[in-house]
Amino acid sequence: MTVNSRMDAFRARLGGFAFGGDYNPEQWDRAVWDEDIQLMRRAGVNLVTLGVFAWASLEPEPGRFTFEWMDEVMDLLHAGGISVDLATPTMAPPVWLTHEHPEVLPVMEDGERFGFGNRLQFDPASPRYREHAARITTALAERYSHHPALAMWHISNEYGQPSYGEASAVAFRGWLQRKYGSLDALNDAWYTRFWSQVYTSWDQINPPEVPRSWSNPTRRLDFKRFVSDALLECFVMERDIVRSYRDDIPVLTNYMRFYKNADYWTWAPEQDAVALDIYPNPGHDDAHISAALNFDLMRSLRGEPWVLMEQAASSVSQWKVNNVKRPGHMRLGSYQAIAHGADSVLYFQWRASRGGHERFHSAMLPHSGTASRTWQEIEALGGELPRIAEAVGARSSAEIAVLFDWNAWWGLTETHGLPRNDFDYTQIATDHYQPLLEAHHAVDMVHFGSDLSPYKVVVVPNAYLVDDRFTDALTRFVEGGGTLVCSFFSGVVDANNQVRQPAYPGAFRGLIGAYIDEYWPARGDETFAVTFADGTTRTADWWQDSIHPETARVLATYASGHLEGRPAILDNAVGRGRVVYLGTRLEPGALRDTLLEAGAAAGVSPLVAAAPGHLEAVRRVGDDAEFLFLLNHSETQPAEVRLAADGLDLISGAKTGATLEVAPLSVSVVRFENTERVQE
Amino acid sequence: MTVNSRMDAFRARLGGFAFGGDYNPEQWDRAVWDEDIQLMRRAGVNLVTLGVFAWASLEPEPGRFTFEWMDEVMDLLHAGGISVDLATPTMAPPVWLTHEHPEVLPVMEDGERFGFGNRLQFDPASPRYREHAARITTALAERYSHHPALAMWHISNEYGQPSYGEASAVAFRGWLQRKYGSLDALNDAWYTRFWSQVYTSWDQINPPEVPRSWSNPTRRLDFKRFVSDALLECFVMERDIVRSYRDDIPVLTNYMRFYKNADYWTWAPEQDAVALDIYPNPGHDDAHISAALNFDLMRSLRGEPWVLMEQAASSVSQWKVNNVKRPGHMRLGSYQAIAHGADSVLYFQWRASRGGHERFHSAMLPHSGTASRTWQEIEALGGELPRIAEAVGARSSAEIAVLFDWNAWWGLTETHGLPRNDFDYTQIATDHYQPLLEAHHAVDMVHFGSDLSPYKVVVVPNAYLVDDRFTDALTRFVEGGGTLVCSFFSGVVDANNQVRQPAYPGAFRGLIGAYIDEYWPARGDETFAVTFADGTTRTADWWQDSIHPETARVLATYASGHLEGRPAILDNAVGRGRVVYLGTRLEPGALRDTLLEAGAAAGVSPLVAAAPGHLEAVRRVGDDAEFLFLLNHSETQPAEVRLAADGLDLISGAKTGATLEVAPLSVSVVRFENTERVQE
Amino acid sequence: MTVNSRMDAFRARLGGFAFGGDYNPEQWDRAVWDEDIQLMRRAGVNLVTLGVFAWASLEPEPGRFTFEWMDEVMDLLHAGGISVDLATPTMAPPVWLTHEHPEVLPVMEDGERFGFGNRLQFDPASPRYREHAARITTALAERYSHHPALAMWHISNEYGQPSYGEASAVAFRGWLQRKYGSLDALNDAWYTRFWSQVYTSWDQINPPEVPRSWSNPTRRLDFKRFVSDALLECFVMERDIVRSYRDDIPVLTNYMRFYKNADYWTWAPEQDAVALDIYPNPGHDDAHISAALNFDLMRSLRGEPWVLMEQAASSVSQWKVNNVKRPGHMRLGSYQAIAHGADSVLYFQWRASRGGHERFHSAMLPHSGTASRTWQEIEALGGELPRIAEAVGARSSAEIAVLFDWNAWWGLTETHGLPRNDFDYTQIATDHYQPLLEAHHAVDMVHFGSDLSPYKVVVVPNAYLVDDRFTDALTRFVEGGGTLVCSFFSGVVDANNQVRQPAYPGAFRGLIGAYIDEYWPARGDETFAVTFADGTTRTADWWQDSIHPETARVLATYASGHLEGRPAILDNAVGRGRVVYLGTRLEPGALRDTLLEAGAAAGVSPLVAAAPGHLEAVRRVGDDAEFLFLLNHSETQPAEVRLAADGLDLISGAKTGATLEVAPLSVSVVRFENTERVQE
Repeated sequence: MTVNSRMDAFRARLGGFAFGGDYNPEQWDRAVWDEDIQLMRRAGVNLVTLGVFAWASLEPEPGRFTFEWMDEVMDLLHAGGISVDLATPTMAPPVWLTHEHPEVLPVMEDGERFGFGNRLQFDPASPRYREHAARITTALAERYSHHPALAMWHISNEYGQPSYGEASAVAFRGWLQRKYGSLDALNDAWYTRFWSQVYTSWDQINPPEVPRSWSNPTRRLDFKRFVSDALLECFVMERDIVRSYRDDIPVLTNYMRFYKNADYWTWAPEQDAVALDIYPNPGHDDAHISAALNFDLMRSLRGEPWVLMEQAASSVSQWKVNNVKRPGHMRLGSYQAIAHGADSVLYFQWRASRGGHERFHSAMLPHSGTASRTWQEIEALGGELPRIAEAVGARSSAEIAVLFDWNAWWGLTETHGLPRNDFDYTQIATDHYQPLLEAHHAVDMVHFGSDLSPYKVVVVPNAYLVDDRFTDALTRFVEGGGTLVCSFFSGVVDANNQVRQPAYPGAFRGLIGAYIDEYWPARGDETFAVTFADGTTRTADWWQDSIHPETARVLATYASGHLEGRPAILDNAVGRGRVVYLGTRLEPGALRDTLLEAGAAAGVSPLVAAAPGHLEAVRRVGDDAEFLFLLNHSETQPAEVRLAADGLDLISGAKTGATLEVAPLSVSVVRFENTERVQE
Repeated sequence: MTVNSRMDAFRARLGGFAFGGDYNPEQWDRAVWDEDIQLMRRAGVNLVTLGVFAWASLEPEPGRFTFEWMDEVMDLLHAGGISVDLATPTMAPPVWLTHEHPEVLPVMEDGERFGFGNRLQFDPASPRYREHAARITTALAERYSHHPALAMWHISNEYGQPSYGEASAVAFRGWLQRKYGSLDALNDAWYTRFWSQVYTSWDQINPPEVPRSWSNPTRRLDFKRFVSDALLECFVMERDIVRSYRDDIPVLTNYMRFYKNADYWTWAPEQDAVALDIYPNPGHDDAHISAALNFDLMRSLRGEPWVLMEQAASSVSQWKVNNVKRPGHMRLGSYQAIAHGADSVLYFQWRASRGGHERFHSAMLPHSGTASRTWQEIEALGGELPRIAEAVGARSSAEIAVLFDWNAWWGLTETHGLPRNDFDYTQIATDHYQPLLEAHHAVDMVHFGSDLSPYKVVVVPNAYLVDDRFTDALTRFVEGGGTLVCSFFSGVVDANNQVRQPAYPGAFRGLIGAYIDEYWPARGDETFAVTFADGTTRTADWWQDSIHPETARVLATYASGHLEGRPAILDNAVGRGRVVYLGTRLEPGALRDTLLEAGAAAGVSPLVAAAPGHLEAVRRVGDDAEFLFLLNHSETQPAEVRLAADGLDLISGAKTGATLEVAPLSVSVVRFENTERVQE
Repeated sequence: MTVNSRMDAFRARLGGFAFGGDYNPEQWDRAVWDEDIQLMRRAGVNLVTLGVFAWASLEPEPGRFTFEWMDEVMDLLHAGGISVDLATPTMAPPVWLTHEHPEVLPVMEDGERFGFGNRLQFDPASPRYREHAARITTALAERYSHHPALAMWHISNEYGQPSYGEASAVAFRGWLQRKYGSLDALNDAWYTRFWSQVYTSWDQINPPEVPRSWSNPTRRLDFKRFVSDALLECFVMERDIVRSYRDDIPVLTNYMRFYKNADYWTWAPEQDAVALDIYPNPGHDDAHISAALNFDLMRSLRGEPWVLMEQAASSVSQWKVNNVKRPGHMRLGSYQAIAHGADSVLYFQWRASRGGHERFHSAMLPHSGTASRTWQEIEALGGELPRIAEAVGARSSAEIAVLFDWNAWWGLTETHGLPRNDFDYTQIATDHYQPLLEAHHAVDMVHFGSDLSPYKVVVVPNAYLVDDRFTDALTRFVEGGGTLVCSFFSGVVDANNQVRQPAYPGAFRGLIGAYIDEYWPARGDETFAVTFADGTTRTADWWQDSIHPETARVLATYASGHLEGRPAILDNAVGRGRVVYLGTRLEPGALRDTLLEAGAAAGVSPLVAAAPGHLEAVRRVGDDAEFLFLLNHSETQPAEVRLAADGLDLISGAKTGATLEVAPLSVSVVRFENTERVQE
């Protein structure tokens, strides 16, 4: 556990969970502001994010600032007892900037400029953009660093867009020079002697274009890495400016759900805490599974509590069909985030806009005002959260880890030319995570650079690309007694996307105890029977490794198809540890059983026992107590759970005994005095 | 009824319905022209549209004219007793114009120039285009204004393309300056303080780009309005030129079926009559329903008879699969147009082209000549039409009106970010119109600016965007005793696309007697049971308003789903009138029953009673007689209809009594001496 | 049979079938080369294609050559007894060329430049490209023309890309000037007087753009012809260079499967032999049918044995899902190519790449090396091929021909605006070819310019566009006693895509003995019953001609639908011959029966009798013997075939008698001493 004095101070200032959201008063007449403050107080709001879209309102022409209205808002909020997470408004540059300097606009993958009218209309590598972003950031920091309302800095917003234009091309070349040192090294890494792609001067290199045809996969891979770094540079530049004015205020930026363009493992050390914007689709019945994974990922990025920076009070407006969060779901989803480590419940945005693209994005205060269901649920939640205030800042731990690494992701989905090219990395990760969640296991997410020593089990889903560092870490982990569950098409290429020789699966051959001579994607909807040692037969589909065991024992064998009689699942002893290797895609039930068996054999035990799968159990551990969050995701079925010790349900205020029933869509937060494992 | 002396003179000249089509002799050798005239006379052709594509043939280089061939064609036609609808050829500029001045070519929404090789290859706002269009128009008017064959001017053709290029950008800025006066007003209307979109000079404003990302909805809305106006300016410029040479010839331009880029309500006052090109898909069984709506729309635009300017003799060539009009359908569709107010039956084109993109677009004279079925049907129809000549010029009236407004359309489909974004405006209008048509009601289409006083019932389908003028008109209409049937998601935003406050459905809260706190799009294929006061239960889907009645009575209630027990349909008394509000999408039968009940309660009665739905009944009323068109759209079932008075079937020449049977795909046009309503 | 001394010398040099593949040693360290030679010898490799992608490795900067590594490779190969098919590397220009001269990059149909990073990144009409391609070709020819390893020249690779940019525009104008002589002739051919498209100077003409809208079909057609010619010019330029150094080495270039951009009928006379790259999809069960057609097409292009230049040892990498060739399929497919006239079995590529887009394209030597199944199958086949060495150079003949013409293809699929626009030319050709193949008939492919006199039956599938030359040839063929089977929508337009007058089907009216007044595409999934003279009723769909017989007899009549009672299939006697005309798309079984009846009536007999359809029988005829290839495409069913004479199975070495059973996925090559027809 690292020391994080800025966030400790922030938590102390708020005295509990942060509750509030984005506040964009520049879109409303002055008269509305008073009503805003009054209703915020009524709802229990203690933090608002101010100024995310305010650049044009703060700097109407280059270098001329109009801070007066913001002064008034800051003062009003402070008077109302509401702290401010002050945003640099640099995600939405004013039209005067891009009209005067069109080269600031990003160029999309298809070569077209991205026009003014949306947000994020800047090339992150543009020196002109950075110059203007630094000026407004400096002006804001100078004016508000010591305002008493200031509690947090919110740098820009949802960094994410790549640019394929000239500024990024120049920066990409510099990034490559720094990485490779010489063109020879780059040509080797990119394997350019094939297809006559040898570069003979740096200026011949451009961002990769839209892949309407084949292209060099390592060039694509490096460009993904560059984009993540270029965006992060924008953050660091602004962070350093605000920090130069005052050093004790936490500086954050908000991440997005499953966001491919930014490697958050490299980002997280640069912020004081991780912050997440998440909009699970209320139209999808299993949206809470993917949400849980994202929450655990955020928690794992720094191993600390994090900030739920944006969620919707009800529906969003960006999809074809935007369903509402039906009664109870918003509350349940908010507690779910807290359960997985969030120290806040924040929304985009406070009051629903009357115009603009997001006019139907729900808000804490909807178009139909306080007479609306949504407001009533917001007000109720705001009133209820203080009951669990002592859980703020509490940590979590897990015995199981699942790999979620951006380089693995990019390798699998961005380089093309694979035996099959419809891998869905986030779905694959979710498929491996879901059975662990539903079996009430605590799960950490890890990356190539993670310390694996805290875990008993590491799950590696379809890690086609792995670097040597991770290969070594996994080997040490297994040799030291850990259990690795690894699924097919893993370990194949190195960090440059070059096939590891002399046989598949290069990096993992010793770990799995077998070599593979061919990867067999399934033909069409083909399925295969797989027979396990205990005689049961399950179904698999989508993929088959053609496996040749060397040291491994065969756990399951194909009972149909062209590989009938050949091994499907392996079990290999390595050092003091064990590797279970899945050479095909098992049906969900069989994957679940395999994962849970491996976990049980490794001595991992669930947080609660015998509870149904729709009952989610998550634990946070504080200094003096631990908090078991029990969330029932069913709309109709109650869930009974057995508890190992007496506790106190902080929300209802009732004492709990050996069993507890959680009503449909409800939640209990049970406080236990000690930190012993909670189970039968 | 307005005076329209130019069209009266035109009708008098032809002495009956116009019959003929587009004639493009420049594609044929001189020898073919004589055969053309002879066969036109054999088919009963009395009007041809000449010169639509003739620019290159009339002005082979800038300013050099070659009118000699057209002189000869005009003379030949005149000698053959065939009148001419003379076209300005400005829809297809010659290659010398766009090759010399590429800036004349339109820029498409994705930023690419639209190249030479199709038609309509001009930016409507291009000064260069307008200069050249004016020159050829002037030359044509000078030469032919007093030619005896001239009966009508056909300005350009199917105006419709937007351009996103520089000429349109400049014109769009001018249009906005005229509309808003100040940037402050524009910024308010466009809600630009949100997302930092404030404009600080006019030249920062551009046409909106292809919506591959989110964008400002009011900018998009205003650009739709601008495009319609820019295209209309082209028409007005040419109209004024030809009118300056001679003032007694009607000047028209041809509209298209359900065409989103031109607000024909603003266009119609500028022409002497409305003209329509329509190509219902013979592959769709219900194409005649949508055709009827379009015909009623054309009739309603000026409240006058109109011109069917183009239809296909059989198949078209622009779709993936181009089905033929099977035997009988071309004749039936032609009479259907007349029934709904057309004073003509005209085709594109007279003789099938041997080459070019449209070589398989059917023609009056097909590739296989007079030995073809199509020719025989054309010849038969041309011979038959004079039997109903006395119906020419007859008018129509209705007691029910359905809203069909371009601003409502654009609001619902062009601004994005709605609770759901798959509204299909023309399908929605058709869904509300079809049950009225099939119940043999006369229906007018109305727009925001229409006088509603003639009607007993007004139907408003999903009118998300309404202006204040329409809100006021509807209120006066209902208060004065009218019945309004309004479906969900209506009245929400104002003309600037800003949500009306303080609650949904802003403009209509008083009318429907309820407020709505949330719009609930259906999740996936979800359906809901709806129970009516009489105990019947029907199905609904796609959408639910979360309704809170204030003064309204509940007509039907959800019997399933998360809104079970909550109101689905309201009935509100306002003044002397009534509002029926549908908060969900009812299954077609339930929508029909609801509409017909409202109509019956309002005292509306159908044109005929007890006839089957596939029998279409339409009335035109002349000075001395009325004409009941009875069209049987079934290919297999005859249709019996009861008539209230004795009449005369003008086509068959037979007298009609109390019942009349119309054969499959056949039509009767029954003349009644008086104008009393025809029914039992 | 033409004399082809260069290929005879090549065959003599190899002394049997060529076996090997593309060898790209520049991607490997020097140490790997020795292992390569050793393993090539182990596998029986006798020919490799060298240098296809080597431009950047041979000419690292303009005019500076680094041939030393290639000298060594050539010497190593020669020392190993392996001949070289030496490639000019001009398909993949180095980055220095396109970086310095971006105008060399092709422009795609949508107007975007195709960037560096793939292959074929040149405009074939670019003078700058041609200048550089000539320089490297000259340097290679100068250095290696007399190297003892040199056995064949491989000019560039898979020529295929069009360019829509300026260089191609200039060349297209020149091509049109040469073709038409005058703009008047072009305007007539392109039918430009319609739609005002008349060109008044050559420089107004551009390549046609992406058809997001309607366009001139003849312009599109001529551009397809131009592209094929422009690509061929590139070949001829390089061929003439290498030939100027040495005249006795065959010069080839490799074609692609069903490749629309190059009219191989015009290409084949320019090479010494036809060469094919083919990658049937192992995921498709009937991939061998389409392969057989392509093989027969290659054989027919010159009426000579051809070179299988590239196939995959197992999977490819360019599709979404890349299935492996399961055990036995690679061997069977290799023999199938030989059966249809190939004198080689060559692969792309020798050793699997570690990086680049094609790293998972299978190779003779896979990533997992000699321990892999693929290597073992390669090694076995290489060892087995010498057993059939005497069949090399043997020819084939057929009594049935099927039209496969690029102009017919382009007419049907590139000109748009047809009654239906979802014709799939290669599928149509395959549908007509498959029943003949499965009935064990030898089939030649023919084009508009072919001599039809060798055939008893000619099959013409949906030949919408035919030129006058073919019409005349067909007429002479039928009048002389031949049988023509022609399917619907044939003979409609001339070579300029203009509808032949005065009635459908213009060119073929006399041949089919009927005129057609309308083409009726089916509505949706509509099907029609068709009753034959023998009383059987079959099903048809997709299309109906509305036929009016003149001299023809009706073979089958519609028994349902709107054309019930009208003729569906005709039988017309013309001179001493017969025409069977199919006016609709018959179900496969009915098409098969109709084709086989016409063949039987014409006196055509199959190569073997009574064998199942999955047994493919193909004959090659040598000087002293004939070779009957019997290939069983079933994975599970053996196939028994009756043979008319005693023979010798060259692979197994066993003598064969009256019956032979071929095991699943197996092949027999039976040698017969005489050339009498092999059947009962």
